[in-house]
Amino acid sequence: MTAISPLAPPHFPDLPVVSGVRLAAAEARLRYTGRPDLLLASFAPGTTVAGTLTRSHTAAPPVIWCRALLGDGDGTARALVVNAGNANAATGEQGHAAVLQTADAAAALVGCRADEVYVSSTGVIGEQLPVETLTAALPAMHARLADDTWPEAAAAIMTTDTFPKGASARAEIDGVPVVINGIAKGSGMIAPNMATMLAYVFTDANLPAAVLGPALRRGVNRSFNAITVDGDTSTNDTCLLFATGAAEHRPVARAGDPRLQGFRAALEAVLTDLAQQIVRDGEGAQKLVSITVRGAASEAAARKLGLAIANSPLVKTAIAGEDPNWGRIVAVVGRAGVAFDQARLSIWLGGERAAKDGVADAAFDEPAAARHMKGQEVDLAVEIGTGPGSATVWTCDLTHGYIEINADYRT
Amino acid sequence: MTAISPLAPPHFPDLPVVSGVRLAAAEARLRYTGRPDLLLASFAPGTTVAGTLTRSHTAAPPVIWCRALLGDGDGTARALVVNAGNANAATGEQGHAAVLQTADAAAALVGCRADEVYVSSTGVIGEQLPVETLTAALPAMHARLADDTWPEAAAAIMTTDTFPKGASARAEIDGVPVVINGIAKGSGMIAPNMATMLAYVFTDANLPAAVLGPALRRGVNRSFNAITVDGDTSTNDTCLLFATGAAEHRPVARAGDPRLQGFRAALEAVLTDLAQQIVRDGEGAQKLVSITVRGAASEAAARKLGLAIANSPLVKTAIAGEDPNWGRIVAVVGRAGVAFDQARLSIWLGGERAAKDGVADAAFDEPAAARHMKGQEVDLAVEIGTGPGSATVWTCDLTHGYIEINADYRT
Repeated sequence: MTAISPLAPPHFPDLPVVSGVRLAAAEARLRYTGRPDLLLASFAPGTTVAGTLTRSHTAAPPVIWCRALLGDGDGTARALVVNAGNANAATGEQGHAAVLQTADAAAALVGCRADEVYVSSTGVIGEQLPVETLTAALPAMHARLADDTWPEAAAAIMTTDTFPKGASARAEIDGVPVVINGIAKGSGMIAPNMATMLAYVFTDANLPAAVLGPALRRGVNRSFNAITVDGDTSTNDTCLLFATGAAEHRPVARAGDPRLQGFRAALEAVLTDLAQQIVRDGEGAQKLVSITVRGAASEAAARKLGLAIANSPLVKTAIAGEDPNWGRIVAVVGRAGVAFDQARLSIWLGGERAAKDGVADAAFDEPAAARHMKGQEVDLAVEIGTGPGSATVWTCDLTHGYIEINADYRT
Repeated sequence: MTAISPLAPPHFPDLPVVSGVRLAAAEARLRYTGRPDLLLASFAPGTTVAGTLTRSHTAAPPVIWCRALLGDGDGTARALVVNAGNANAATGEQGHAAVLQTADAAAALVGCRADEVYVSSTGVIGEQLPVETLTAALPAMHARLADDTWPEAAAAIMTTDTFPKGASARAEIDGVPVVINGIAKGSGMIAPNMATMLAYVFTDANLPAAVLGPALRRGVNRSFNAITVDGDTSTNDTCLLFATGAAEHRPVARAGDPRLQGFRAALEAVLTDLAQQIVRDGEGAQKLVSITVRGAASEAAARKLGLAIANSPLVKTAIAGEDPNWGRIVAVVGRAGVAFDQARLSIWLGGERAAKDGVADAAFDEPAAARHMKGQEVDLAVEIGTGPGSATVWTCDLTHGYIEINADYRT
């Protein structure tokens, strides 16, 4: 068995208080012992919410619950409950009942309606959630809610993540400062029996759900929807954005209001930071890989091609092997279902152009490209010559570590 | 580094003569030394041809040549030239010129038109083909053409295949016996720098191209299009079927003629045999995995879901780890883009039902399923409850061997 040399984990950042948000973590022993596995967050009255949820058609009961709240509710939230170790997926009616029981218990503590309580789960698929154990832990957690417990909160939602993930940014809306904090766990269908990418973002901005939603979807498309570890979308993927409204800026009613420019940029920065942390913690990851596609018909087409390259086992193993093998990228471009002009196809490894006009570039400095690929951060770029669309996606390399974590494990 | 325990290679079968087909292999040293890397086949006048080619939009010049001949030609073939070690892909105009030069050289030897010469290449992408070296080897090969050189022919088209692949079947058309031989190489974008699945099938049946085509496409959909090693479609995938017409049965003009029933079944048997050999020789393969999907809206939908399961790194590593982790299959079903009824979803590992009605089956005999997964042949089945469509696909597990072959290699 070869040694795993993971990318160095980033330090957990110093997250500021978000007025109106309080959190508590606990060791509820739903599956793990000796570590926190349950998160309760409470939000000030009037907190608005927007979310993006897995497109999986085997979505877990907590995802179906959140989707119903986001779609039919009034766009407000008063609490969030997240457990790690059990995905509450493929659990049928009993799974749905467990979600409702969780929401009822949290609502009674916080003093709100059950449909103001958002619920997420991550972990094993196909086992019933020990919901009595979960709800029994909530009262003590409610008594300990605090506004500075971000590291504990980020740790409580981890499954086989090797480090907690947090990010923060500041912006101004109409001249009034606002803060955005985010926590997340990784990544794709990540671990032996675990599932799910979860991310929760909290701001004191005073924005209605109708304004939060478009900002979140745009940011998620450019961050969480632009990363991949193994291409396996999970049954539980969830990203929720809560806005407490504590910041005293003037009302903003439209998603396209230009006063939101700084907020949107800060939100995208937080989401991208979290997304890249998830890739850095990808199973067996030794390298963080950025793939930029230019010259596509649209941003969406560029992202589609970028993700096809990022999901190719042959590209990911070539990167693990530090092999400047651009022919494998040509093959992916050809099969990705994206319009391109082969006569205008160019490929760069690091800053070195390997292919030009669809064939080998005679001036390719292969030794320089090989040196670039020995680093922990690898940049690939592809120009496909059909339009103005561009996008960047991130992935990690495919290594023995991935096989060790996913195959050498036994249930 | 862990040991690789590949599946045992099958014995190369004893392929009979196909009247009208002669073959010669040679060590042309296009890239390899000490092994054959060039195949020349000649066909009797009047030989018809049908083919399926890669859908890649970075298709290599030899694929583009074959597509033009199949589309615009008269459906006849007199020769086939295949080289291993260089894919002649991403080679632009110079690559196209090399194909034409190859066809001209073979046509002069065989005594036919250049547009009756089919050409294939497999190997490194992005390097120009040493076409003078190739054509210089052809005259001596032409002098050695013989009807019994099937093992040499199958060996000459290998890249990193670990064994040559051949299959044969007999059938009757209108009471007259016909024979079908096939040779192939593996599999997907298979190797460090190599590419391509190639298969050539030869029969003495007397059938026009318009009849061969539908029979071949139906068979390929159920064989080569139902296997995957790594999901990476190559730039050079090619399957050609040549029919010399030496068998003296009465003419068959329609693809749907019921007299072709036995021929179609025998052709599908040859194609499926070759396809399974390719999977058995998949990089790092330790297990041959059959995945059957039932209850889909159509056969195509069933195959799409089967291939999504077969391409999931998490499913493939679970199989490598002999882990009866059916939750990973639930996740793939949910994201595969195929209509299903979660309340009627069932999953079997071996003969053991793990999930029923979308949740864990309380009667699941997990130890029995775990025993099944320790074997070299693993069967998975999924029932999705929406229609009559079913399909079976084949793949291999994802092991350290795959990483070793693709990442530990250096150019």
